[in-house]
Amino acid sequence: MIQNPAFAVEPWAIRERGLNLDVLAQTESLFALSNGHIGLRGNLDEGEPYGQPGTYLNSVYELRPLPYAEAGYGYPESGQTVVNVTNGKLIRLMVDDEPFDVRYGTLHEHERVLDMRAGTLTRRAHWSSPTGAEVRCASTRLVSFTHRAVAAIHYEIEAVGRTCGVVVQSELVANETVEYSGDDPRAAAVLESPLVVEENVPASEGVAIMVHTTRASGLRVAAAMCHDIETPGEASVEADGAGDVSRVTIATRLAPGQRLRMVKYFSYGWSAKRSRPALHDQVVAALSAARLVGWEGLCADQRRFLDEFWSGADVEVDGDAEVQQAVRFGLFHLVQSAARLEDRPIPGKGLTGSGYDGHAFWDTEIFVLPVLTYTYPRAAADALAWRASILPMAQERAVQLGLRGAAFPWRTINGEECSGYWPAGTAAFHINADIAHAATSYVDATEDRRFERDTGLPLLVATARLWCALGHHDAEGRFRIDGVTGPDEYSAIADNNVYTNLMAQENLREAAEVATRHFEEAQRLGVTLEEVATWRDGAAAMYLPYDERLGVHSQSEEFTRHAVWNFAATRPDQYPLLLHFPYFDLYRKQVVKQADLVLAMHLRGDAFTDGEKARAFAYYDALTVRDSSLSACTQAVLAAEVGQLELAYAYLGEAAMMDLADLEKNTVDGVHMASLAGAWIALVSGFGGMRAGHGGICFAPKLPPGISRLAFRLRYRGRVLRVGVTAASTTYRLLSGEPLTLTHHGEPLTVDGRPVSRPTVTVPPPEVQVRQPPGREPVPRRPPAERPSGHQAATQPPEEHP
Amino acid sequence: MIQNPAFAVEPWAIRERGLNLDVLAQTESLFALSNGHIGLRGNLDEGEPYGQPGTYLNSVYELRPLPYAEAGYGYPESGQTVVNVTNGKLIRLMVDDEPFDVRYGTLHEHERVLDMRAGTLTRRAHWSSPTGAEVRCASTRLVSFTHRAVAAIHYEIEAVGRTCGVVVQSELVANETVEYSGDDPRAAAVLESPLVVEENVPASEGVAIMVHTTRASGLRVAAAMCHDIETPGEASVEADGAGDVSRVTIATRLAPGQRLRMVKYFSYGWSAKRSRPALHDQVVAALSAARLVGWEGLCADQRRFLDEFWSGADVEVDGDAEVQQAVRFGLFHLVQSAARLEDRPIPGKGLTGSGYDGHAFWDTEIFVLPVLTYTYPRAAADALAWRASILPMAQERAVQLGLRGAAFPWRTINGEECSGYWPAGTAAFHINADIAHAATSYVDATEDRRFERDTGLPLLVATARLWCALGHHDAEGRFRIDGVTGPDEYSAIADNNVYTNLMAQENLREAAEVATRHFEEAQRLGVTLEEVATWRDGAAAMYLPYDERLGVHSQSEEFTRHAVWNFAATRPDQYPLLLHFPYFDLYRKQVVKQADLVLAMHLRGDAFTDGEKARAFAYYDALTVRDSSLSACTQAVLAAEVGQLELAYAYLGEAAMMDLADLEKNTVDGVHMASLAGAWIALVSGFGGMRAGHGGICFAPKLPPGISRLAFRLRYRGRVLRVGVTAASTTYRLLSGEPLTLTHHGEPLTVDGRPVSRPTVTVPPPEVQVRQPPGREPVPRRPPAERPSGHQAATQPPEEHP
Repeated sequence: MIQNPAFAVEPWAIRERGLNLDVLAQTESLFALSNGHIGLRGNLDEGEPYGQPGTYLNSVYELRPLPYAEAGYGYPESGQTVVNVTNGKLIRLMVDDEPFDVRYGTLHEHERVLDMRAGTLTRRAHWSSPTGAEVRCASTRLVSFTHRAVAAIHYEIEAVGRTCGVVVQSELVANETVEYSGDDPRAAAVLESPLVVEENVPASEGVAIMVHTTRASGLRVAAAMCHDIETPGEASVEADGAGDVSRVTIATRLAPGQRLRMVKYFSYGWSAKRSRPALHDQVVAALSAARLVGWEGLCADQRRFLDEFWSGADVEVDGDAEVQQAVRFGLFHLVQSAARLEDRPIPGKGLTGSGYDGHAFWDTEIFVLPVLTYTYPRAAADALAWRASILPMAQERAVQLGLRGAAFPWRTINGEECSGYWPAGTAAFHINADIAHAATSYVDATEDRRFERDTGLPLLVATARLWCALGHHDAEGRFRIDGVTGPDEYSAIADNNVYTNLMAQENLREAAEVATRHFEEAQRLGVTLEEVATWRDGAAAMYLPYDERLGVHSQSEEFTRHAVWNFAATRPDQYPLLLHFPYFDLYRKQVVKQADLVLAMHLRGDAFTDGEKARAFAYYDALTVRDSSLSACTQAVLAAEVGQLELAYAYLGEAAMMDLADLEKNTVDGVHMASLAGAWIALVSGFGGMRAGHGGICFAPKLPPGISRLAFRLRYRGRVLRVGVTAASTTYRLLSGEPLTLTHHGEPLTVDGRPVSRPTVTVPPPEVQVRQPPGREPVPRRPPAERPSGHQAATQPPEEHP
Repeated sequence: MIQNPAFAVEPWAIRERGLNLDVLAQTESLFALSNGHIGLRGNLDEGEPYGQPGTYLNSVYELRPLPYAEAGYGYPESGQTVVNVTNGKLIRLMVDDEPFDVRYGTLHEHERVLDMRAGTLTRRAHWSSPTGAEVRCASTRLVSFTHRAVAAIHYEIEAVGRTCGVVVQSELVANETVEYSGDDPRAAAVLESPLVVEENVPASEGVAIMVHTTRASGLRVAAAMCHDIETPGEASVEADGAGDVSRVTIATRLAPGQRLRMVKYFSYGWSAKRSRPALHDQVVAALSAARLVGWEGLCADQRRFLDEFWSGADVEVDGDAEVQQAVRFGLFHLVQSAARLEDRPIPGKGLTGSGYDGHAFWDTEIFVLPVLTYTYPRAAADALAWRASILPMAQERAVQLGLRGAAFPWRTINGEECSGYWPAGTAAFHINADIAHAATSYVDATEDRRFERDTGLPLLVATARLWCALGHHDAEGRFRIDGVTGPDEYSAIADNNVYTNLMAQENLREAAEVATRHFEEAQRLGVTLEEVATWRDGAAAMYLPYDERLGVHSQSEEFTRHAVWNFAATRPDQYPLLLHFPYFDLYRKQVVKQADLVLAMHLRGDAFTDGEKARAFAYYDALTVRDSSLSACTQAVLAAEVGQLELAYAYLGEAAMMDLADLEKNTVDGVHMASLAGAWIALVSGFGGMRAGHGGICFAPKLPPGISRLAFRLRYRGRVLRVGVTAASTTYRLLSGEPLTLTHHGEPLTVDGRPVSRPTVTVPPPEVQVRQPPGREPVPRRPPAERPSGHQAATQPPEEHP
């Protein structure tokens, strides 16, 4: 775990003072820069030491065989793994013949800052070599939001105390050594050296270009670099390149106080179809465009882009500086993961690491897109357009599985199923309803009717058809969906998972509505009124198992009759359970990895009474071990809804700190996009009580003791809405757009450019004590006064000044 | 499929006239010889052509990695695969410099006969070489029932027409090329050349010895051979050997009518512990003993052994010569698989091929042992003693799975779990109750109290403990066993599988009874009266799901509410379903691979009323596709019980002809021991209506139209009982032993050496028409007159003359 004191708690930055090599891999993930197309891990400029070197291009993957001890029909035979492409961020430094390496010599000072308004990672180092040469290094790195193919580094080196010789080597390097964590020697072999060089043009004419192709997947990747170099005195600049390395070498001498300055521009392009010369020219052109704008221009564009983003997306939290920082950190990584997506997926870890093999899962649609929909809607549309682009593969997969419509892959990069364990992959059909839900929500939030017709309709029709193929009516006329896996990965292959059935119900209803609204286009997809009627009918007859004795819905059929997991006999070191107990045992018992029925109560709250919600929240919270990062934020939302505000606050803390505190000990492989989204979800949907849908947008604000003020901005139906909440009152105001009618604790309210306030509801202390499995309680979030020093208390007044 | 006309239908032999190379691999399985310790496939003496070369020693296996696309806790990391050990049956022949190879020259005549009374495979060939040299060859091969380590071949070659030079090369060959059917290159590599030579002593002193060790599993295997050679004239005999080959070469000239005669004795030994010199000496000693007895002596011993076996095991069938032949063929392979077991397992395919990797499964306990228990009980005791010997591993596995007691492996050779797909492996916990059932049945049939105490008690205690760990009481006080897989492999991970729960109930009851009877020994296993009480309690509260609407038990919870498989849309070429549909789809629908609830009605008939049986048989027969060889015989038993005699007869035919007609198209890999047992089960438990248990032994004979007389012998509690059934009457007689009280159609009857007859019940034509899934109906068995010619009609009179 990263000790929090490693980072200063600042509202707009993540600042690391000093350099702790033990958490280098984690900080590489936290400090990763990306624009959704290019991703650079926060590796040190000089390349070493490193936790995991990482340069990614969205959707550049290699194929690897998926082996099975016992094969089965429909098992995917090959998987996709994100590959570490050509590293363009490498700048080696030699000082008086000693390589600059923080593991040797003396590191007097080291600081890295991720600036969430500037969109840059800056680094300052003050170092003496083992032989006493002393330098200050400073670098600023960015992956451009406005120039999709471009990244750049401003690099500066200053001699201190005495004159010294410096040699800077700026490089492009392919096929860096990457550790493979699996146990399949064949996969390791595939991923050891995935890139085959096609072209290596040294930078003799100013621009270095390298073109590679992935061995099995046949994707062509081009990278180029060029430099603006400024030296105080004479310097030699040489270029060479061969094989997997291209190098520009600058040698000079610096007197004390003199500086060598360099801007390195590098660009990427990839394609499954375009030729080597075409890609070659493409990356050179990208460099020309970047150089024209120049370093200052890139920085200015970066800031403008983020100013515009934050103006409709910022969340302010008074009273809890950690959460303030974390929610902005989350939003920053979200916009990084999606800004220049353009019909590509958002992987579970974005482009910040190779975790989950770089695959995209359902968490994009259920956790990430809800945030983007209200903060950067274009990216949500892009991510859903990617789903639409892989619809043909999902339709093929449905045919292979003996179904109709579309069966989207559980995990994938290129659209083909990569899940090698079907009970938790293929069987988790809810992903199809999740995609439909995201598309529906996006249209609801944007009123983007062209998207609805061109992207939403095909997705809704194909997924509705899937549910008709998966479900059937039983003798009592109930529509059942048997033998599927819901969100909780500690249950599998169960009948009538409530989450799945409710999401399928929504999917069917929305498909019917949208197909009716765009009937001409629907007919082109073969939809008839008869088919629409079967969707409405399936939705209306949807069966939800309910345990009368307990007064709660059963997560799936028979779930509440299963033995309860023996939590008392489970040691703390036996979590996460899946590493210490067989699936067999987990599946047959009442133990919940992550919000499932509770997630259903969030996304389909209309299907539950308040009493059902309160009882079910208490029942399932006592069974939920949160061995997944996809849980705490949803528990926060429901805890807030049922009035368990302190508990909601604790869950918010867990969601918010997932990566900053490395709670699941796998931030090394990249940050968790869904959990980063979770801080926003817990604040906005939890304490803001925001829900949206056909009835418009509703709020039910209530604050936990630790937060004195919460304010958030949302983009909604062409407007920017600002909601400010204190314990006393909630103020709504439109920052832009036409007047809007919303709901505050059930009361309709029309809002325009003038603030309108209403009392914030005061929640009585809860009557029921909700308990978690012993040892799995979330860490209570203490009021600011009780926190260890070093955490800044809020300086803003507790009143809301809109 | 093997066309039946390939084989003459004879009561005591399988005779193949001519040689059809297309079914060579199948006939190698059918003609395999074994004594349960050594197994020799029916490969041609000269080694080529072959379908699959095969020489096996019970429990000699190699380890291979089990790969997973996504690993999980408790997954076995390495599997065991039976290895083809040193081939000692190889005798190559050269005639006038032309190798004797049936693919070249002219094969005038070829016949192979498996003689089920002699226990030999004989072969005659009359062949002309491409250059016109003509010979007759004759060989007789046996694997000795009385000399466990010994096999022998009597080989004869005669010149026809003109004098020719013959060279006979008798060999031991290790690491023959074997095709690997899996898709894991690492496993293929492991199995390509599994034996490492340790010693190769040529036969210069008369005996050739080869000692090898398996590469990864470290098992030492020794083979030796020696020869008695008789030539009419001068002959040279040379021996050489190196690496993986040892050779004795005999060269001579034969005038027309002259014969070269040779007896080849070969012996095997293997050990995980014994040294090379010890194994070397062991195989030499085995040869000495065999040579002392000589060929004639070995043959006489073989026949005496089988005479004794048949005297208490034979089944006579009049009216259906095919079934007559098939049931004896089945019994013959069963005794071959088990005669000299001595604490080793009976693999699913015996030692007749490498199918199922040579693993033993539950079918041994539920299909094979019931037959051996009443025909060759010593072997049943041996097989169960093997289970007791692997109890420590099963106990470790239970601990690994977080359970108590013993969790026996779903598939294994050495006692460790080899199942690489847990939903159909680990989750199929019924295997533990199946083992307990076999032990209980064995003790009931033999009254072997020493076995009960020393072998049965530890098995019953350990398995009862497992059920207590697996089950729990729900709020209604019912004892549930959730999330397990029953016999039907088209369902998995379901709650309260009726078969599992009923077998567990019996397991718990029997454990309580036996532990009480041997309480002192039970105490040594830690059993207390309190623990025994929990067993009785679990058994008494055992929950069985029942569908009130249908009036049938639900195979497992919710099963009867699932969608029924769309049989109408399933094409004939889509069977077996598991090769054409995902498990996901199979598991969630009403489609049954093999008898499950129907098997429960056979083994636990006491738990069902007659009405429940009739309704459930009809309900489940309509869903059962019989994609497993472990189904038809059980369906025959229940069809007979509920009065569906023609259907029972058709199922008997399918069970009986499984391998002789290669119905599942995988006889190439070895014969199906369980289905071979099935012919006996369908006849004795089906038409004989035999059931045994605490109430003693009961019969309820009824004959189908096609069988005019059925007679069978059983070993039961120290007696040999003969039961003869015609349509008119049933006659009981003890061939040996003290008077016995049995039950005939519910009437108690005391039987001694004198025949006692009672009327056979006449069953009215069934009122209900039982249907199968379209296209999956068993082939109706026509009365003899309607069968194609070539099948011998019964010559015996239809009356029973005991």
